[in-house]
Amino acid sequence: MVSGNSKRDDGLQLADMIAGAIMSFAPGEDTGCYSTFVKKSEPAYFFKQALIQDIALSTLLRRARSHGQFPMNNLPSTHIQSILNASIPLFRFATGPLYNDNVSKPNVCDFAFGNPHEMPVAGFADALQKWSVPQNKDWFAYKRSEPEAQHVVAQSLRAWRGIEFEPNDIFLTNGAFAALTVALGAILDAGDEVIFNSPPWFFYEQLILAQHAKPVRVRVNAETFDLDLDALDAAITNKTRAIIVNSPNNPTGKMYPVQTLRGLADILEKHSARNGREIFLLSDEAYSRIIFDGRGFTSPTSFYPYSFLIYTYGKTLLTPGQRIGYIALPPNMPQETRAALNPAIFISQLVTGYAFPNALLQHALGDLDKLSIDIEHLQHKRDWLVRELSAMGYQVHSPEGTFYLLPRSPIANDWTFAEKLAAQNIIVLPGQVVEMPGYFRLSLTANDAMITRALAGFAHAIHV
Amino acid sequence: MVSGNSKRDDGLQLADMIAGAIMSFAPGEDTGCYSTFVKKSEPAYFFKQALIQDIALSTLLRRARSHGQFPMNNLPSTHIQSILNASIPLFRFATGPLYNDNVSKPNVCDFAFGNPHEMPVAGFADALQKWSVPQNKDWFAYKRSEPEAQHVVAQSLRAWRGIEFEPNDIFLTNGAFAALTVALGAILDAGDEVIFNSPPWFFYEQLILAQHAKPVRVRVNAETFDLDLDALDAAITNKTRAIIVNSPNNPTGKMYPVQTLRGLADILEKHSARNGREIFLLSDEAYSRIIFDGRGFTSPTSFYPYSFLIYTYGKTLLTPGQRIGYIALPPNMPQETRAALNPAIFISQLVTGYAFPNALLQHALGDLDKLSIDIEHLQHKRDWLVRELSAMGYQVHSPEGTFYLLPRSPIANDWTFAEKLAAQNIIVLPGQVVEMPGYFRLSLTANDAMITRALAGFAHAIHV
Repeated sequence: MVSGNSKRDDGLQLADMIAGAIMSFAPGEDTGCYSTFVKKSEPAYFFKQALIQDIALSTLLRRARSHGQFPMNNLPSTHIQSILNASIPLFRFATGPLYNDNVSKPNVCDFAFGNPHEMPVAGFADALQKWSVPQNKDWFAYKRSEPEAQHVVAQSLRAWRGIEFEPNDIFLTNGAFAALTVALGAILDAGDEVIFNSPPWFFYEQLILAQHAKPVRVRVNAETFDLDLDALDAAITNKTRAIIVNSPNNPTGKMYPVQTLRGLADILEKHSARNGREIFLLSDEAYSRIIFDGRGFTSPTSFYPYSFLIYTYGKTLLTPGQRIGYIALPPNMPQETRAALNPAIFISQLVTGYAFPNALLQHALGDLDKLSIDIEHLQHKRDWLVRELSAMGYQVHSPEGTFYLLPRSPIANDWTFAEKLAAQNIIVLPGQVVEMPGYFRLSLTANDAMITRALAGFAHAIHV
Repeated sequence: MVSGNSKRDDGLQLADMIAGAIMSFAPGEDTGCYSTFVKKSEPAYFFKQALIQDIALSTLLRRARSHGQFPMNNLPSTHIQSILNASIPLFRFATGPLYNDNVSKPNVCDFAFGNPHEMPVAGFADALQKWSVPQNKDWFAYKRSEPEAQHVVAQSLRAWRGIEFEPNDIFLTNGAFAALTVALGAILDAGDEVIFNSPPWFFYEQLILAQHAKPVRVRVNAETFDLDLDALDAAITNKTRAIIVNSPNNPTGKMYPVQTLRGLADILEKHSARNGREIFLLSDEAYSRIIFDGRGFTSPTSFYPYSFLIYTYGKTLLTPGQRIGYIALPPNMPQETRAALNPAIFISQLVTGYAFPNALLQHALGDLDKLSIDIEHLQHKRDWLVRELSAMGYQVHSPEGTFYLLPRSPIANDWTFAEKLAAQNIIVLPGQVVEMPGYFRLSLTANDAMITRALAGFAHAIHV
């Protein structure tokens, strides 16, 4: 039996288990181990080299070793190992000392993740309490996509987007994570290719691998952060089944313009016709209500009918532990395609571990849809930080939406710069974790007091 | 755009979409279509022949056709089509007229599924309301398996099973559906084989297919409903990676005895040694707290260390729309195996659409774990129905646990007999839907009034 590990904190537990998994994959010396590991993995991406040069992983491994936690065997399947491999950059940060040795310090200024740093939005708990009272015997019975919740979403999209989605075409899910999983599961065969744009959200690659499909990474334009249409055009093959687009984008804050989206639609139509089957556009619109400066949002689904609109309430409400989101098929998708996708999505939802939202959240959705965090306040924090950081000499653009700022790291190694900031009691996400080496990411969900406290530290770090 | 489908009831919508999917797979004449479909599918099982002879499917297809809902293309992937194929027996019932034309009738006696027919258990809504009040800024933030919830489960298993599970080895999931998905995802490579016992729960085959693995069905003993150890022994190959055991079993109500479980462990150990890798035992213990006559429960995990204990609160609380359950790795599993499984399960949980339970349910788990539906009342309903049905001439055994009775159909075709009962305003599940042709399943979650009303109808149906 394992000794008293249960008393250790959660971060350390996770650090140990991930480190154990890495070791199990390629036992050997610390640094050598990781080099071996990278060679064995997917084609090395530009950002992985930075990791190898870094010693933080060996620190992590030593820590795990000191706890005597080393499995002697590989992970139980090569499949799950491949998914772990794709997760290493994130796990290395999330389970390593840079984050875990600092996050619990007093007065830490935590900009690492899009986590809440204030109490939940007013009205959220009230809605849960109100709808916890059962109104009939079926109140907490098995739920699929409840007609009332489908109606709330269709009405919401009509009010907000001006498009008449059919309630039938709304699939309620456990947030966007589940919506993406379900969408991919509904359309992919083993060996199909799925394109995603880099920098990406943390888990696109893993979700594609989980379906036994092939992830294909395409970089956005390095200057404008816009989609690189030529590169996308070149990346599509006769095995391409889907492309994932995230607008506004985490981590760049870029909202793709109408012209780009029209160009993307043309490319997808051309290749779909050539391939004799549709390439689906999975539009991850998690941040589509987190938009600044009064800008309108143009959905990537607007110009291409074979689209899945994917949304989660987890960002708008900043309650990602209560999971509700959806897939919506747009009304300009041909009826026969929607009719074929409808059962496919339903069945995919079943075999994604019954990925329907909890009954309570579906009952409460009419109330929850009306709530939001304070976007003006978020915009104020964006302006405040952009102004202050720029004045200090940081190169930082002003994002059009999302929770994130993405300043350039003043030194080439963003991990090292993040360590400098950590010495100032400031936690940021090194850019290499989100495939943006040479940058660092700040979450605007940090509270005002954190920002106030952090300014001197940001000013200090750029000059040492 | 689809016309006013949104106004149709949910059952009809689903009927249409499934029927459309079947048609899309093999367009043609109704009966011919289904024959073609069966030939194209997995090796025909004994129970599928019964379906082909039946005309109910063509009724379903005609209904869908009359709504003009026919996709012209196949489902978007052959993978999702294979999962749909395995779901046909259930969908044929759940979306067809035998269920849907009757379930909303006044005074219907609905024994079809393990759904609630009384108001939720006292204390459940109170617990949700109490724990909806945020106690800190992280109350509804991203949750993995929360340490407090892991502790509740470990304490609960200690009190109830007398085994000291490590909190670290508890993985909280969105119910047992997600726990099974996550467990399979953690251990399987494409082409691995997974054995399950027939009659099975509705979705084992689909969950195995979803992992690109091969389902292998082994019948239980037709007389005793006990596991057929010789058949299991013969079914294991060098590709077998796991076996799913469900005790007490839905639909037979059988609780596998210690001697059987010891024999199973011997077989698994023998083949694991021969194969040079462990065959994992996935023990679906959803009904392990729904046991009658003061019997103790012996977990199938007790005798075989390479086991996953899988549990859901959805049965004990009869609130399957609020999804919380878990995987527990037993303390007799070697430490290095647990250390290797730990990250595999964690990652599998991520790519199962973030299959962690909602924050609220994890906060409330200490309270929820103490609640239960009234098992004595359930036992009373079992005794009442067994006594009355037996007196009428039905052959029915008394189940040791679960929600279900499984009487023999007085006529060979259980679907036809279910239609006779439907004419008496009684809905039951034809045995062929759960791979038990010649039987029908009754859920004891029906309320007392339903049972009282149904007795005359049961008596009438056996004599016409």
